[in-house]
Amino acid sequence: MFEAKFQTFEETADPSMGAGRIAKLRAELKKRDLDGIIVTRADRHQNEYVPACEERVAWLSGFTGSAAAIVVLADKAVLFTDGRYTLQAKEQVDGKVFAIEHLVTRPPADWIADNLPTGASLAYDPWRTTLDGVERLQKACARAGGKAVPVDENLVDIIWQDRPAEPLAKLVLHDLKFAGETTAAKIARIREELAKAKLDALVLSDPASVAWTFNIRGGDVAHTPLPISWSILPREGMPALFVDGRKLSNEVRAALAKLADVREPRDFEVELHEAASGGRAIRLDQGSAPRKLADIIEAAGGSVSKGADPVMRMKAVKNAAEIAGTRAAHLRDGAAMANFLCWLDREGLGKSEIEAVAALETFRRETGKLKDISFPSISGSGPNGAIVHYRVTEKTSRKLGTGELFLIDSGGQYEDGTTDITRTVAIGKPSDEMRERFTLVLKGHIAIARAVFPEGTSGAQIDAFARAPLWAAGLDYDHGTGHGVGSYLSVHEGPARISKLGSAALEPGMMLSNEPGYYKTGAYGIRIENLVLVTSHEAPKDAEKKLVGFETLTLAPIDRRLVVPAMLSAAELNWLNDYHRRVAAGLSPLVSTATKSWLASATAALSN
Amino acid sequence: MFEAKFQTFEETADPSMGAGRIAKLRAELKKRDLDGIIVTRADRHQNEYVPACEERVAWLSGFTGSAAAIVVLADKAVLFTDGRYTLQAKEQVDGKVFAIEHLVTRPPADWIADNLPTGASLAYDPWRTTLDGVERLQKACARAGGKAVPVDENLVDIIWQDRPAEPLAKLVLHDLKFAGETTAAKIARIREELAKAKLDALVLSDPASVAWTFNIRGGDVAHTPLPISWSILPREGMPALFVDGRKLSNEVRAALAKLADVREPRDFEVELHEAASGGRAIRLDQGSAPRKLADIIEAAGGSVSKGADPVMRMKAVKNAAEIAGTRAAHLRDGAAMANFLCWLDREGLGKSEIEAVAALETFRRETGKLKDISFPSISGSGPNGAIVHYRVTEKTSRKLGTGELFLIDSGGQYEDGTTDITRTVAIGKPSDEMRERFTLVLKGHIAIARAVFPEGTSGAQIDAFARAPLWAAGLDYDHGTGHGVGSYLSVHEGPARISKLGSAALEPGMMLSNEPGYYKTGAYGIRIENLVLVTSHEAPKDAEKKLVGFETLTLAPIDRRLVVPAMLSAAELNWLNDYHRRVAAGLSPLVSTATKSWLASATAALSN
Repeated sequence: MFEAKFQTFEETADPSMGAGRIAKLRAELKKRDLDGIIVTRADRHQNEYVPACEERVAWLSGFTGSAAAIVVLADKAVLFTDGRYTLQAKEQVDGKVFAIEHLVTRPPADWIADNLPTGASLAYDPWRTTLDGVERLQKACARAGGKAVPVDENLVDIIWQDRPAEPLAKLVLHDLKFAGETTAAKIARIREELAKAKLDALVLSDPASVAWTFNIRGGDVAHTPLPISWSILPREGMPALFVDGRKLSNEVRAALAKLADVREPRDFEVELHEAASGGRAIRLDQGSAPRKLADIIEAAGGSVSKGADPVMRMKAVKNAAEIAGTRAAHLRDGAAMANFLCWLDREGLGKSEIEAVAALETFRRETGKLKDISFPSISGSGPNGAIVHYRVTEKTSRKLGTGELFLIDSGGQYEDGTTDITRTVAIGKPSDEMRERFTLVLKGHIAIARAVFPEGTSGAQIDAFARAPLWAAGLDYDHGTGHGVGSYLSVHEGPARISKLGSAALEPGMMLSNEPGYYKTGAYGIRIENLVLVTSHEAPKDAEKKLVGFETLTLAPIDRRLVVPAMLSAAELNWLNDYHRRVAAGLSPLVSTATKSWLASATAALSN
Repeated sequence: MFEAKFQTFEETADPSMGAGRIAKLRAELKKRDLDGIIVTRADRHQNEYVPACEERVAWLSGFTGSAAAIVVLADKAVLFTDGRYTLQAKEQVDGKVFAIEHLVTRPPADWIADNLPTGASLAYDPWRTTLDGVERLQKACARAGGKAVPVDENLVDIIWQDRPAEPLAKLVLHDLKFAGETTAAKIARIREELAKAKLDALVLSDPASVAWTFNIRGGDVAHTPLPISWSILPREGMPALFVDGRKLSNEVRAALAKLADVREPRDFEVELHEAASGGRAIRLDQGSAPRKLADIIEAAGGSVSKGADPVMRMKAVKNAAEIAGTRAAHLRDGAAMANFLCWLDREGLGKSEIEAVAALETFRRETGKLKDISFPSISGSGPNGAIVHYRVTEKTSRKLGTGELFLIDSGGQYEDGTTDITRTVAIGKPSDEMRERFTLVLKGHIAIARAVFPEGTSGAQIDAFARAPLWAAGLDYDHGTGHGVGSYLSVHEGPARISKLGSAALEPGMMLSNEPGYYKTGAYGIRIENLVLVTSHEAPKDAEKKLVGFETLTLAPIDRRLVVPAMLSAAELNWLNDYHRRVAAGLSPLVSTATKSWLASATAALSN
């Protein structure tokens, strides 16, 4: 029987608690002579997935969406979320307690600038607000004639009686055969960066950076093997790693002790003070490090160097072992996808979106290697497919109907690699419009897959290659074309991206998604997503520039029934047929007998 | 006889004066207890072309390049310029006095951070340094443990005995038939912007913004009809216009007095203080306004709102009269270009680069409408064509040789419009490589000309369309694809551009250049430049987005002998043939009899 173990489908919202909890929070504010507070869905590490004990917005309001902030003043309370969650927010929170505002078009800073009373003090948690975030808050409060006040002790936690405990998942060592580079070598490279930038030390506040540097993995948040932890990396001397000792087996502790001074998180503040004293320059990533760290450094007489965490770029460029790992993971994951797509073709009609998620997860688990899914699957049939970040629940789950499109975006966490794939599948006979628009999306996908560009080119420069075919038809999609992907780490990883905001150069070894789409509201959604590896491209005769391009890593059939071959150029058609030959050759030995014959026809060549 | 009246070809450098002048400057610094100074090639308005009295870098060092700064310390003096001018700088300055550094890879701020002694004070002119510029300087000095000190009185001017007078070119009213919108209507629109941004006033520090707003033109700098002036535009009440009264005829003064309080520039400081007092919020463009203005506003108790000059965007979107004007200017200019290109084909071989410039300017003057050229023509034969910002001098001028390419980039200022065009022409028989690379550049040019994209798309998003054909061959060009162009104003105008830095949305009515190129160092240069107008594109059936695209404004043959038709797709070939049909139809009635038959064959259809 199919089963989803890593994903749930219930709705946990309870709007009824909002009024009482906001009243209690206001009482706490009043006690401290504060006039308001901002509460964001953030932990100290700005993790994408946060532990239950950090779900303050949900606890306060009932709202469970991932993009969320609350501002409470004496007479107003506002929940901010984005367009994906507007409807959900209306259902999950008490409209008598909260107004709902748009996180992007009317962000908290703008709302505060307009609504904070003159002379008022707005509290924020300096551990859960980044350096950039505090700067925005301060400007907003100043525009209103008020001020932003850091309050170290989180005021929500004071009233949250049954707050869950901090997670204590065991740390594991990430095998060198997967990591491909020793911690010693990584630290040596980081130190070179510190020396170049004339820095005395680097603070790693992002657990993904800690995990990469120390070749460790954890399990403190959902879908990403992160160990919640900090590290201080001085230019000289032993790095310090701050992690709850209860997460460490004797073996892991012994291994780590060779690389770092292993300390408890409660010592972090004192050690950071120590590391900064004597005027030392310490790098903080202003977009993700807590403002509190800057306060500690400055109080110690150190200087804060705001800039990118150098581990971000290092981690983004995968080494040979990581690339070999991801190839193995993609073969395994592709076989599970093929088994799933075969099942879907034969038995999908009439099944529910939830049943599809359970089936796919089951095929992935049957590989025997699945550690987790890499994010909650987006499983949208018909109009649900048009909701870009759709999360299926018992309440929203639709049955797959004939003449509809079904979009499924999912991925797996394997020790050797992280996957992320979207396929859009015709259930029954698709309309001409569906096929034409699918083919436009496919042309964009192929344009990225085949793109060739000089070293140093950024993702922003090539993003429009994926959109041009849709643009010509007056269509577009309202999301980036690709995001960086970690190596048994976060499925969303900076700094590389293919998007108008993607300023990082695309370097050989970087791994990204290629996922153009098209969404017809109320009707259907289309997305075709493969992961790609940035590779050196063989230079043509007389080339003056070193060229790079992409190798497609993901292996799974693209639904041929949705392709209009006459709309493809010869080069595009060649790409698709070549890709399907690779898919068949790679997956055929790994799939079930039933899938094998299906795979042959699902990857047969098309001609126009 | 052909003659260049608007452009000179001499080299005016005199390296011998550097040592004495720097010694005098050091004495002035010492008198004031200052340890160093930065001198940039900038006037108070950050004009692209500056009057002779602002050429402090040239006077101090001998260096006449347009990108230049000097830093003088007690024991070091450095001239900064960019890659275009490195060789020229070595010839024009005394190497015993000045080290030469690269303005881009080793900018003054970095050099200062590394070289300013601890505790030292570095002087800057707050009238000739922007808000952003001062921020960079302050950071650099702080990194060195020193400080940046504003010195209002320019220290170079104190020692510059025979400094030329400020220019006093007469102001003229820009006829409403060319401007298309009254000053009253423009001011009303600016006030709406001020209200939206909750501002009390706007300072126009860019003379182009003043010229556009008040429908005036001047002649204080070369090649751009700018009136050096300031304006303070309050949200309510009469605007103030600060312009030297000697530039005003009675008639112009009377016309302006209906629109603004016309004041002398010496009153500007006091009036700005007045406008800012009482806590008023005043917008300054931080990238172009002098830091001094912020100091005045803050001293008066006002607040500085840093942000874009809203006139920049308004001015960039041309109205119907301006568009009609530019079409007329492009027909006239195209006819002059055709006469020139015909002459070049028949008589160019063996002529010099300077003779070519003189011929082209003469054909333009013969239109009877030429006010000025819009920038010094770039006239490069053979290897000189590969120097992107080449300026021909008596010393560098080459004869046009057979088997070579000749690149000429030029433009005219007419009352109804500003033009900018580059053509690359085969002298004798071109090599296969030249034709192949020309065709790659042409494919990029056509990709921009034919591009279609949703409203709101920026130039950064489409820049790579022009590069993709070159990229595939391992080639590229090291400049943007297009810049905004003014309406009888600056030939380089923000905010729109087609470049990886072009973040402004391309809106219908904006006018830009489309100028991809390819440069083979030491051999030849290729550039194909037309001006284009952003236009609404007719929406295809079922379009969901409003689309925009480009209409090509420039009319002049593209050298067919350099095109390899087999390398063009059917759509590209159609574009070229359609374009040439438009060129022939538009220009044929306007050119000389000799040119007319030449034009027919120069625009004949190609097939593959």
